[in-house]
Amino acid sequence: MDKIKVGIVGYGTIGKRVADAVRLQNDMKLVGVTAHSYNYKMTSAQVKKIPIYKMPEAEELNNLKLAGDLNDLLKNVDIIVDCTRKKIGAENKEKYYLPNKIKAIFEGGEKADLADCSFVAQCNYDEAVGKDYIRVVSCNTTGLCRTLNAIKSKYGIDAVHATMIRRGADPWDIRHGPINAIVPVLELPSHHGPDVQTVLNNMPIFTTALSVSSTLMHLHSVTVDCKETPNVDEVLKLFENTTRIRVVDNASKVRSTAEIMEFAKELGRNRCDMPEIVIWKEAIGVTGNKLLYMQAIHQESDVVCENIDAIRAAMGFENGKVSIKKTNEALKIDYCKECTVE
Amino acid sequence: MDKIKVGIVGYGTIGKRVADAVRLQNDMKLVGVTAHSYNYKMTSAQVKKIPIYKMPEAEELNNLKLAGDLNDLLKNVDIIVDCTRKKIGAENKEKYYLPNKIKAIFEGGEKADLADCSFVAQCNYDEAVGKDYIRVVSCNTTGLCRTLNAIKSKYGIDAVHATMIRRGADPWDIRHGPINAIVPVLELPSHHGPDVQTVLNNMPIFTTALSVSSTLMHLHSVTVDCKETPNVDEVLKLFENTTRIRVVDNASKVRSTAEIMEFAKELGRNRCDMPEIVIWKEAIGVTGNKLLYMQAIHQESDVVCENIDAIRAAMGFENGKVSIKKTNEALKIDYCKECTVE
Amino acid sequence: MDKIKVGIVGYGTIGKRVADAVRLQNDMKLVGVTAHSYNYKMTSAQVKKIPIYKMPEAEELNNLKLAGDLNDLLKNVDIIVDCTRKKIGAENKEKYYLPNKIKAIFEGGEKADLADCSFVAQCNYDEAVGKDYIRVVSCNTTGLCRTLNAIKSKYGIDAVHATMIRRGADPWDIRHGPINAIVPVLELPSHHGPDVQTVLNNMPIFTTALSVSSTLMHLHSVTVDCKETPNVDEVLKLFENTTRIRVVDNASKVRSTAEIMEFAKELGRNRCDMPEIVIWKEAIGVTGNKLLYMQAIHQESDVVCENIDAIRAAMGFENGKVSIKKTNEALKIDYCKECTVE
Amino acid sequence: MDKIKVGIVGYGTIGKRVADAVRLQNDMKLVGVTAHSYNYKMTSAQVKKIPIYKMPEAEELNNLKLAGDLNDLLKNVDIIVDCTRKKIGAENKEKYYLPNKIKAIFEGGEKADLADCSFVAQCNYDEAVGKDYIRVVSCNTTGLCRTLNAIKSKYGIDAVHATMIRRGADPWDIRHGPINAIVPVLELPSHHGPDVQTVLNNMPIFTTALSVSSTLMHLHSVTVDCKETPNVDEVLKLFENTTRIRVVDNASKVRSTAEIMEFAKELGRNRCDMPEIVIWKEAIGVTGNKLLYMQAIHQESDVVCENIDAIRAAMGFENGKVSIKKTNEALKIDYCKECTVE
Repeated sequence: MDKIKVGIVGYGTIGKRVADAVRLQNDMKLVGVTAHSYNYKMTSAQVKKIPIYKMPEAEELNNLKLAGDLNDLLKNVDIIVDCTRKKIGAENKEKYYLPNKIKAIFEGGEKADLADCSFVAQCNYDEAVGKDYIRVVSCNTTGLCRTLNAIKSKYGIDAVHATMIRRGADPWDIRHGPINAIVPVLELPSHHGPDVQTVLNNMPIFTTALSVSSTLMHLHSVTVDCKETPNVDEVLKLFENTTRIRVVDNASKVRSTAEIMEFAKELGRNRCDMPEIVIWKEAIGVTGNKLLYMQAIHQESDVVCENIDAIRAAMGFENGKVSIKKTNEALKIDYCKECTVE
Repeated sequence: MDKIKVGIVGYGTIGKRVADAVRLQNDMKLVGVTAHSYNYKMTSAQVKKIPIYKMPEAEELNNLKLAGDLNDLLKNVDIIVDCTRKKIGAENKEKYYLPNKIKAIFEGGEKADLADCSFVAQCNYDEAVGKDYIRVVSCNTTGLCRTLNAIKSKYGIDAVHATMIRRGADPWDIRHGPINAIVPVLELPSHHGPDVQTVLNNMPIFTTALSVSSTLMHLHSVTVDCKETPNVDEVLKLFENTTRIRVVDNASKVRSTAEIMEFAKELGRNRCDMPEIVIWKEAIGVTGNKLLYMQAIHQESDVVCENIDAIRAAMGFENGKVSIKKTNEALKIDYCKECTVE
Repeated sequence: MDKIKVGIVGYGTIGKRVADAVRLQNDMKLVGVTAHSYNYKMTSAQVKKIPIYKMPEAEELNNLKLAGDLNDLLKNVDIIVDCTRKKIGAENKEKYYLPNKIKAIFEGGEKADLADCSFVAQCNYDEAVGKDYIRVVSCNTTGLCRTLNAIKSKYGIDAVHATMIRRGADPWDIRHGPINAIVPVLELPSHHGPDVQTVLNNMPIFTTALSVSSTLMHLHSVTVDCKETPNVDEVLKLFENTTRIRVVDNASKVRSTAEIMEFAKELGRNRCDMPEIVIWKEAIGVTGNKLLYMQAIHQESDVVCENIDAIRAAMGFENGKVSIKKTNEALKIDYCKECTVE
Repeated sequence: MDKIKVGIVGYGTIGKRVADAVRLQNDMKLVGVTAHSYNYKMTSAQVKKIPIYKMPEAEELNNLKLAGDLNDLLKNVDIIVDCTRKKIGAENKEKYYLPNKIKAIFEGGEKADLADCSFVAQCNYDEAVGKDYIRVVSCNTTGLCRTLNAIKSKYGIDAVHATMIRRGADPWDIRHGPINAIVPVLELPSHHGPDVQTVLNNMPIFTTALSVSSTLMHLHSVTVDCKETPNVDEVLKLFENTTRIRVVDNASKVRSTAEIMEFAKELGRNRCDMPEIVIWKEAIGVTGNKLLYMQAIHQESDVVCENIDAIRAAMGFENGKVSIKKTNEALKIDYCKECTVE
């Protein structure tokens, strides 16, 4: 079978990771990535021999060696993964993908109606099969969908309330704060609840959010009113047995987002990422019909595998479970999940 | 009437503030404070002409001028406010206050059963009148009690779930982190729920907690299942009309804990403190019978006024409302509450 | 004698402090401040009964009570202190101060040639007497000038090399980082050296700078090649005896910028400011002819007293020493300097 | 030739990296590492099939599979790399290495006189050949030695003054601060200067130090009084051509320690480390005979390659240049150095 020819537009936090991930799939070929400006990410891409295509609006690219411009890239791909900043994806769809009849995957910064469906592989893969435009939801929404989907299937859900404690900026981002403050989102509910509903229809969820002075991961404190009474041990097993969720415990000293990131370094994965949603064993609680848990979200990487599955779905690959399995194996996801919970 | 003669044991974050506050009451006299070690707090106390008494176990006190030792202090006071570190209060009770038959106020780091009652003035002042040993609950518990007491009186409460986002260390504390992490408390529920119940009996509350890299204030994200359906505007009024609660809004640009602290500087109060619990107008929400809100807690100062009221209660002053009013006026609490909400 | 009628244009970090300081001088009268937008600073000014004048370009001012507009303010003042953001001062000079023949003080964000002289009171007061436009240099430059001027007068200076470790953002500023990085200024020398030379002519100084994740104070690590060999104890005395410099020591536990800010709270000054340049006794060292020391700069407040002295100088008050003394007394500067060094 | 049989005592920040590095050398064999307690580092080691040996004083090791105890390890190795915490190395030498006549490498937390020589491979490899006990100096000292050794060889050095801006805690360390402060070391000179002299005899260096709220890297601001006048372009070339030093520039957007760490992720090295000392092109300056530069030190990794070379030296491998080359190739050091400076 021919490999799927993939192009990446936007080579930032997500784009560079999707590029790496595509290169690890045996049914895909990375045709190239786009250059918008000169920087260490582009020079490193060149070192890795990834073909680089110039965007029309690119700034000075200095001594980068170019494989062509965006049009050259568009001519040679089956599908584009658009990892540009918020709203640029919508512009690119109009300017490039629609006129050239090219399928595209968009990221969670874009509005839901830009795409034919929003997507989290383990929740609604089937819905996305054969679609031209698929939107991978944001890192936070992806995290909520993965765990809530599992809980719903086992206990049913009457209501969800979640507080999202968000990292203030990504690790490389030196411009944004806060340096010393807790910053609530002064809008209730935050946008995350409605966004979950683009994947899990009718999920009754209400979210509040705030930002803190950390760069590593988001953390969610979640309360679920279940239809049936949950049980802590059972929930623990449920999470352990659900793909792309990882349970850690205090005994293994993974007590914070910092230690999750350090643990990711031990596992030796690419860029020291932690694509699984991480849940603390000791922070799962039940009171009456209410289930409480805390989960950590690696904002830079949890959606990368979703993009890979979305590519397959868009190209008509019908078996979601097989896609997830292929992606997981290639990216070492669910790798050594057992090694930090006794 | 004779002034109440007050001594402070422990001159740290809380002790030094209670000392300042006692000096501002017209029915109290600060007899003195204790010195445990030499530092800028003690030299500054000396500048303010506060008498200093040496603790038996004190380290080298250098050139501090002493008014005597702890026994001298104990002989001259009606009541001690014990602001020492966790567990030391219990030791001091055994060693000094019981044998000398001296009344004492303890802080929230001590266990509830050390005292005859736990205390938040606007919730249970009457219970504390005439008691020998009163425990002012911790900053977080005080904050929860103030707002939940108001909500309960208006709507009734079926259940409370709160996530406490705690500042990692106090502003002066250079030793403790985290520098770059979100650190969940790996124990459910956190101790705050049971602590609330020492003041508000039978309050059905469940709390989770985590620490972040900030020194300024704690922030609580609270969900209350009310018995009667609440209404946002009504709740806003309720909070505005409750003492020691302050509502701020986005229009006045008080958007974070940092800006609350800056606003406190504008108000010109002692040490730039914000003793009121601060609630954001835009973060009050209702969904069904559930009321959601976010509140910020100035951990260094919200209990100071409680200590003053607890002194009066212990000494037999019977009218809680009058005590709260006297304390508020002396400390400029509820001062200009209207000036940041349109 | 008539009081000097002062208006403040720009009511931010510096402007609001200069307003407070003007109100504390017995030879000055604060005519009013300008409003550029609605926020807690303006509502607090109103609480303090400071007259508020609307800027032409002001945003919606909601329910603020106005005393008039900028023209009304300009008609009633002898001098304006312009505390607007960088470059706005230059525009205001052209648009308002020159046409209306009003004297003005500018801040360090403006270019030196905008004013008739740059200014640090204890270094070059005489130069500024009677000038129409005086520029108070930036917080960092002010700090360098105060200590270098003292050292030069005693030992002579062959060369100065300083590394400025800058706070990333002000305490109230939630937008700017870095959250977790050290950010060098990639330009040698940084602009601070040439700026020092606008006050201390021909000072041979070379500076490097970097930003860190803190909001409280800047810290300078300074190396001075002296003409005559310095001596640690002598230098300590020199600094102790120089106005607007404060020496602290390890024994009193003022070991960091955080503890300096806490010490400022103990001293009970307005807004808990520390306008003196703070030097650590234990961090003064001599090797050969080289003097090394570390000094901390409270970026929000060290220039406030300079603005007050600059007002007097501009208005023709000839005795710099007397001005400095008046300002210091009104603002409690040099207050209790002895209380943290044994 | 037989492979060198290496054991690692202490499996923390440095120990786990040296273990990985030993496994990548074709002339070494990792016999095993020691377990002191149960945690995610040990379970990950097990996943990597690294044999684990129990320390006598080990806490509960839960379900870890053990290859034996420390004595079993000692029997099977030629040399131990002791990566335990400060002072424990000295105890281990007395208790285990001397009695068992086993060679050992110690880390920079130990005192210099514990070993036969202190060590930075490119500075004094020859001195260490055949020695029984070698001390690899600390991360900061290693960084200073690498660059000063190069400068000295080209220009000669009269004096060095360096300010070390230290990260407050390692990335995984959630306990230590400061959260919001700059903390000077109140001792002049700091210990780094004398430590440099254990490698570069008679280097006239004086250092000051301070800690900041960051976890990523240390940054040094260095001023060197050269014997011969340096030249910026020449110095740039000197650094580019020196092993284990990497020059980056503003054009490639590596503007901070955060972006250095992100660049390390692009390079795809183990644990995303940056073992080279990183110097900014734009921060190299010359004034008279003085050379100024800023360098960043990845505290977790710069000494790892030094440990590998120290093993070879201790075992009698005589050619330092060859050892450095072998180590560099195995660890991808000096890899793509050219790709971030035009």
